[in-house]
Amino acid sequence: MATSTASDKLALIKENLSEVLNVEIIESVLAEGRPLKVYWGTAPTGQIHCGYFVPMIKIAQLLAAGCEIQCLLADIHGFLDNLKAPLDLVQQRAEYYRLTISAMLESIGVPTEKLRFVLGSSYQKNPEYIMDVYKLSSLITEHDARKAGAEIVKQSSNAPLSGLLYPILQVLDEQYLDVDVQFGGKTIDPVSIYSPWRRAHLLSFMVPGINGGKMSSSDPDSKIDILDSAEVVAKKIRKSLAVPRIVEENGLLAFVEFVLLPAAALKGRREFVVDRSRDGLEPLVYSNIEEVQNDYRNDVLNPQLLKPAITQALLAILAPIQAKYQESKEWQEITLKAYPPVEKPKKEKKAKKVGTGHPGRPKTQIPEHIKAAKAEV
Amino acid sequence: MATSTASDKLALIKENLSEVLNVEIIESVLAEGRPLKVYWGTAPTGQIHCGYFVPMIKIAQLLAAGCEIQCLLADIHGFLDNLKAPLDLVQQRAEYYRLTISAMLESIGVPTEKLRFVLGSSYQKNPEYIMDVYKLSSLITEHDARKAGAEIVKQSSNAPLSGLLYPILQVLDEQYLDVDVQFGGKTIDPVSIYSPWRRAHLLSFMVPGINGGKMSSSDPDSKIDILDSAEVVAKKIRKSLAVPRIVEENGLLAFVEFVLLPAAALKGRREFVVDRSRDGLEPLVYSNIEEVQNDYRNDVLNPQLLKPAITQALLAILAPIQAKYQESKEWQEITLKAYPPVEKPKKEKKAKKVGTGHPGRPKTQIPEHIKAAKAEV
Repeated sequence: MATSTASDKLALIKENLSEVLNVEIIESVLAEGRPLKVYWGTAPTGQIHCGYFVPMIKIAQLLAAGCEIQCLLADIHGFLDNLKAPLDLVQQRAEYYRLTISAMLESIGVPTEKLRFVLGSSYQKNPEYIMDVYKLSSLITEHDARKAGAEIVKQSSNAPLSGLLYPILQVLDEQYLDVDVQFGGKTIDPVSIYSPWRRAHLLSFMVPGINGGKMSSSDPDSKIDILDSAEVVAKKIRKSLAVPRIVEENGLLAFVEFVLLPAAALKGRREFVVDRSRDGLEPLVYSNIEEVQNDYRNDVLNPQLLKPAITQALLAILAPIQAKYQESKEWQEITLKAYPPVEKPKKEKKAKKVGTGHPGRPKTQIPEHIKAAKAEV
Repeated sequence: MATSTASDKLALIKENLSEVLNVEIIESVLAEGRPLKVYWGTAPTGQIHCGYFVPMIKIAQLLAAGCEIQCLLADIHGFLDNLKAPLDLVQQRAEYYRLTISAMLESIGVPTEKLRFVLGSSYQKNPEYIMDVYKLSSLITEHDARKAGAEIVKQSSNAPLSGLLYPILQVLDEQYLDVDVQFGGKTIDPVSIYSPWRRAHLLSFMVPGINGGKMSSSDPDSKIDILDSAEVVAKKIRKSLAVPRIVEENGLLAFVEFVLLPAAALKGRREFVVDRSRDGLEPLVYSNIEEVQNDYRNDVLNPQLLKPAITQALLAILAPIQAKYQESKEWQEITLKAYPPVEKPKKEKKAKKVGTGHPGRPKTQIPEHIKAAKAEV
C-alpha cells in the first residue's frame, strides 16, 4: 500500500481510532517530512493471544505510514503487576513478547526496520529518571494524580499507591523515549493533565473479544493463542458467542473491522471474503465494515457463514507466524523459559503476614524478596 | 555522665520523649550488649537556629548512651521541598548542616565518634532503592498511604503527590541505613503502617519556640541563629514572649526543659541557675523542670529573672560553637556558598505556566530544570 503523501499518511495514522489528541502535532511533523516518532507500551505478563492483533494492526499501519515506532516492553510494570514472578522471569517474557510481536508484524506484511524494542528497566531505574519521578510527584497534586490514575487503574479504596505513580511514569516515558505521539488505550488520555510537555495521543477503541468480552490471557476460553493449531482455532471460533443480527459488542464483527479488513488493506486489497459454496452460492466479498454489518443485520451474513470465513482469514495470518516459531529454536526456548509448564496445579502459598507488632495497625503483606532487601549504604 | 548499665542507657534513651514505639526492640539490643543503631533525618533547607538544640540534645543523649547514630542529610527531600534551589546548592547546605551539627554536639560535650552523616542522594537514587520504592508503592494501598502521609505533610487537596511517597522513602531509609530505631517527630509514627520491617521509633515532643510558637528559619524574629552575637541573643530573648505564671506553651521554660537542663546533665550536673544578685538574693538553683515550673507559677521565678538566666546558659553553649566557626575557613566558606547573601530583595519570577494545549485541562507549573529533562534512552 503506497502512502506517499502527508494526507495519505495522516489518514492511515488516524484510521480505526477512538480519538486523536493534539492532531496538529502529527500534522506539523508530517509537513516537516520527517518520520513521526511513536511509542506504544505493553507490560509483558501473560502469553500473547489474538486480541493483540488489534494494536498490532495499528502499529502496522503506523509503520506503513513511515512512523518510527518504539515498543516499550514495560518489564518493571509487569513485575509490579503481581509481584510473584521475579524480574528476570518478566524479562524473559519481554524477550518472548519481542519475538512474538515482531513475527506478528512481519506476518501482516509491513516493513519493520523502523520498529525498535525498549526494555522499561533499561532507563526507568536510572538516577536521572527517578529524580524526575520525585520531581513530578512534587509538582503534581494528589488530587490531579487521582484524577489521572483513576482511569488507568481500577478505582478502589484498596487500589495500590502505584496506581497514582503510573501516569507519572507514562509521562516521563514519552519524554525519555523522545516521541511525538503515544499510541495506547483510552487510559493515556488523562495522563496529559500531568505532562509538562505537549504530545499527541492516539487512543484505540476497547474492542470486544471473540466471546463478546475482552480477550484475556487469564481466561483460556476467551482467547485464541497465537500458536493454537488450526483445529483449535476453528473450534474456538465455532464455539464463540455470536447473536444473529446483533452487531453491537459483537466480537467476531469487531475482529473483521479492526484486524481482518485493515490487514487485507495493508497487503494491497481491503476485502473480506465469505465463502458460500456449500450452499452453491457466489462468495460475499466486502471491502468495508459497513457492508459486513448491514448484511449481518439482515441475516444475509449469519454466524454460520461468518465463523468459517473468519477462521480462514485468521489462519492465513497465523500460518507464517507459526511456521516461523517452528523454525526458531530461540523463540521456542524463550517461550518455555518465560512460561514454564506447570506440572500440576499447586496450592498457592499464602503470603506471610508481617505485622508491625503494634495492635490495631493494619497488617501489610510483604513478599519475601522485599523483606530480603539489604542495606547497601 | 557514666551510663554503664543497660537500664541507665535505656533511661537516657527514653528521656524527654513524647512516645517510644516497640521499646522491646531497644531493650533486646541493649541486653545483647551491642550499640543501638539509630537514624535521624533532616532536610537541609534553611540555616540552623537554636530550635535545633532540641533534637541535638536527644542525639547527644543517644551518643552518651553508646548508640551509633546516622544523621541522614536528606538532600533530595530538601531539593523537592521547594524545587527552586538546584540540587548542588542543597548539597552545599547539607555540608553546612554537617559542620554545624557536629559543632553543636561537640559543644554539648558528647563523644561524636559514633556519629556518621549520610547524604540521602548517596543511595536514594540507586536502582535497588528505586525498585523498592516501586515495590512498596504496589504493596501499599492508596488509602493507607493517605493515612500515613496526612500526618507528615500538611493535609490539603492540593498537597503534592510526593507527600504520599515520603513515608515509603522513610521506611526504606530505616532499612537501607540498617538501623534498629528511628528518632524523629511524631510524623514517623504513622510510617510504621507501611513497614514490612519492625523498628523502634523515638518520637519527640513538639517544643514551642522562644516566642511561644515553633522556631522557624523563615521568620527571623522567631529564631536565634547559632551564630548570633551575644548582644543579639540577649536582645532576642529579652524581647521574647513570656506570660508570667503561665507554664503551658512557654517557649522559654521549654528551652530549659529540653535543652538547658539535659545539656547540663550531660556535662555532669543537671542544674539550672538563676542569678538574683541584683536584688541582693541567693541564686535559684534547679535540678529539674518541675521545680522551675512551680516557682514560675508562683512568680518566684518571673520572666525578668528567667530571661537573663537562659541567655547566660545559652551563650555558654554557643561560645565554643562560634569560636570554632571563627577558626574554620571551611565552615565559613560553605556557609557563604550554601546561603549566598542576597544583594537586595528581588521580585520573585513567576514560574511559567506550561499548558497542555488542551482547553479545560488544569495547567501544571513546571520549572525549567524539569522541562529541560533530556531523553537518554
